[in-house]
Amino acid sequence: MAQALLHVCTTCRREGAAPPDGPRPGAQLLAALLAEPLPEGVAILPVECLSACSNGCAVALSAPDKWTYVYGRMDPETHAAAILQGAAAYAATADGLVPWRERPEIFRKQSLARIPPLPALDPIPALKDAAE
Amino acid sequence: MAQALLHVCTTCRREGAAPPDGPRPGAQLLAALLAEPLPEGVAILPVECLSACSNGCAVALSAPDKWTYVYGRMDPETHAAAILQGAAAYAATADGLVPWRERPEIFRKQSLARIPPLPALDPIPALKDAAE
Repeated sequence: MAQALLHVCTTCRREGAAPPDGPRPGAQLLAALLAEPLPEGVAILPVECLSACSNGCAVALSAPDKWTYVYGRMDPETHAAAILQGAAAYAATADGLVPWRERPEIFRKQSLARIPPLPALDPIPALKDAAE
Repeated sequence: MAQALLHVCTTCRREGAAPPDGPRPGAQLLAALLAEPLPEGVAILPVECLSACSNGCAVALSAPDKWTYVYGRMDPETHAAAILQGAAAYAATADGLVPWRERPEIFRKQSLARIPPLPALDPIPALKDAAE
């Protein structure tokens, strides 16, 4: 079955939202996600820094043979359910490409990047050469 | 040997830099990269849209078992050599983590995101369950 890894940056700050000594908004987002029912096929993986620091809170979706997606400016207080809804839709695809209208609005509007899946090794000459 | 896939968005625009009917800055960046000597272990892969449209030109580095990196606001006229230098350094690592001081300045300052490598399947319960 298709799967999705939901990477959650736990060190993210948000502009104007983080008291200096309080929990990081990224950690708050992780807690909010863990408090929701986990959709089938989705695993949540905390990560220290997704290097999207100017667009926190950030999350990323990846899985073998699928496009990877990164989203920013997630709100720990309001976005957890939509993030998981989007992760479930991603998990249900073969290639990670969820039809536009089926994506949560925060995924449609707050994409930071997407990256193609790693190709099979054979068709890439540079990789094939190295394997020989 | 370690390898690097350098994904180059060919549809990227840059703010104020693209005439409406001219070649896209992303395509110009691809051409500039292809005009430079290709470092050992690096393969250049054009891609239509990295979904980093507000931060074009965008490129991404990925490879099996390595962190993926995405960089934005690349300049086709001035950044090609530094991008390839950074890609070569990435290719030479086992995990994609290039020491900070060895990264080109544009990589240090213009990171859009990084994503952990896909884990081996066994340690991830959700994936392990699905494989059984």
